[in-house]
Amino acid sequence: MKPQLIYKNEIVKNLKEKTVIKLIEEGFALLSRGEVVLAPLSSLNFLKPPGDCHIKAGYIKHDDVFVIKVATGFYDNPTINLPSGNGLMLLFSQKTGELIAILMDEGYLTDIRTAAAGAIAAKYLAPKKISCIGIIGTGTQAQLQLKFLKYVTDCRDAIVWGRDPLKLEKYAEQSYLKDFNIQTTLNMDEITRSCNLIVTATVSRSALLFEKEILPGTHITAIGADEPGKQELDPAIFRKADIIVTDSKKQSAKYGDLAYAIAQKIISLSKVTEIGDIILNKKPGRTNEQQISIADFTGIAIQDIQIAKTVFKSLKK
Amino acid sequence: MKPQLIYKNEIVKNLKEKTVIKLIEEGFALLSRGEVVLAPLSSLNFLKPPGDCHIKAGYIKHDDVFVIKVATGFYDNPTINLPSGNGLMLLFSQKTGELIAILMDEGYLTDIRTAAAGAIAAKYLAPKKISCIGIIGTGTQAQLQLKFLKYVTDCRDAIVWGRDPLKLEKYAEQSYLKDFNIQTTLNMDEITRSCNLIVTATVSRSALLFEKEILPGTHITAIGADEPGKQELDPAIFRKADIIVTDSKKQSAKYGDLAYAIAQKIISLSKVTEIGDIILNKKPGRTNEQQISIADFTGIAIQDIQIAKTVFKSLKK
Repeated sequence: MKPQLIYKNEIVKNLKEKTVIKLIEEGFALLSRGEVVLAPLSSLNFLKPPGDCHIKAGYIKHDDVFVIKVATGFYDNPTINLPSGNGLMLLFSQKTGELIAILMDEGYLTDIRTAAAGAIAAKYLAPKKISCIGIIGTGTQAQLQLKFLKYVTDCRDAIVWGRDPLKLEKYAEQSYLKDFNIQTTLNMDEITRSCNLIVTATVSRSALLFEKEILPGTHITAIGADEPGKQELDPAIFRKADIIVTDSKKQSAKYGDLAYAIAQKIISLSKVTEIGDIILNKKPGRTNEQQISIADFTGIAIQDIQIAKTVFKSLKK
Repeated sequence: MKPQLIYKNEIVKNLKEKTVIKLIEEGFALLSRGEVVLAPLSSLNFLKPPGDCHIKAGYIKHDDVFVIKVATGFYDNPTINLPSGNGLMLLFSQKTGELIAILMDEGYLTDIRTAAAGAIAAKYLAPKKISCIGIIGTGTQAQLQLKFLKYVTDCRDAIVWGRDPLKLEKYAEQSYLKDFNIQTTLNMDEITRSCNLIVTATVSRSALLFEKEILPGTHITAIGADEPGKQELDPAIFRKADIIVTDSKKQSAKYGDLAYAIAQKIISLSKVTEIGDIILNKKPGRTNEQQISIADFTGIAIQDIQIAKTVFKSLKK
């Protein structure tokens, strides 16, 4: 059997963003219900030029398929006019082990499923009334996070923080973000003072947001720190938070901003709730407008499984 | 950039077996010299139908590429006329993370690189004079092990052990093994009495070869046990062995027949030599004809890297 080959242009053309959000929400619920088997994470790191490769794999029990996802990040690529991110997804039969389809999405689906997770976090955790959306970071993921928030909030005002004025300008000019009224800033204060829904989506290796700046009634989604060494939040922020949510408790014990806070004994893992349990109504999410909530996501294979399945279904020959 | 797609038929047509053995030997040496970076192993297991999926990845330092290899084994496949093994290899740029080539070898290259490792073990560890080759197992790998031994020994007499007379008959009739004079047997004794080069290549989950049966001057290559639960050798055999060799000390501590012997404190890892160190002449191999030697291989990504590179080089457009 020859696997079906699916290229990025077909994927982009056929992807339904709202459907992706719905299916990934279902995926988080399946995970928290114990219906998902995940392979141990595997990765490679490169020094010259700096890069990494992450391999995630898993399946839904009693399903027809399993999925392996490869995502690469080579951070000097933009200097030679290539995107940093790349990758592909492989869909196999859970009955025979045969390769069914290769989704040569070049990292696009990883970007989308990550943005969808940000929307889901906001849907369940952000205050009802969003005054202004704060985006920390100017890259592809920082752009997609804003794009996907339109499905879960009516707020169309956003402030974007970055270190590079040129990148900020480019961000504000993105045609696919034209629904939003976008301001840019070099001062983090402007974000923390004006925004009660903040998303961090950078490759930072040290904290960008600090405890004292976070006002009551703020929700933060931290997306960028997905491996040891990467960091976006001052671990002390978690002490101030009323609600701490992760995509996977198992992964957060080792990766992401939560891992720092747990290692420094600022919080214990028992204070952390999985988003799937909130979706399933087994655990409360935000219960009042003054709470501080944090969703720290490192990305899990169930997102890849769900998006690969929906893409394959829509393009199956 | 669109990756080059390479299918099994092209791979089979272009593969040079002797070159593969040479390159994998070089690969083992590179590994023992510390020139190879390996990703943590990842795998998935399936219950109904029974199957597994192994993901291996790695790269040679300062090389142009890195490789991810996926191998699946679904052991009920033959009942629906499909091969048990399947898989593919992915070749990426170590400079940009881009996917360069997809080798849709359907598991063929994993079979070949494993057979090549068996030939390398025999080259360095078997007695000079091979009286008869003993093959334990009747599957594809048991066949390929014999096929590849022709490159490292002049012996053309073989006895094959299996449980199923029909499978034994099929084995003996394989046209690509016609250089060999093949006898078959249902009695393991015949193997251990007559053969001083024995290869185990089964999916057994309990010991097939026992300490008391192993005569002085025997070399055993154990290939089949590559994950927890699989076993081919009575752990006590390792106590009797003069030379114990692995493809990777790190992996043998956890997987394969050696892991049982180490866990039961029959031997310690310090008694185990890496094949790469023997190839590099840093450690002795067999020093006399009466020694008992064992090579217990679980398969490492450097083999996949080397075979993927040579296939890509020969088929590069």
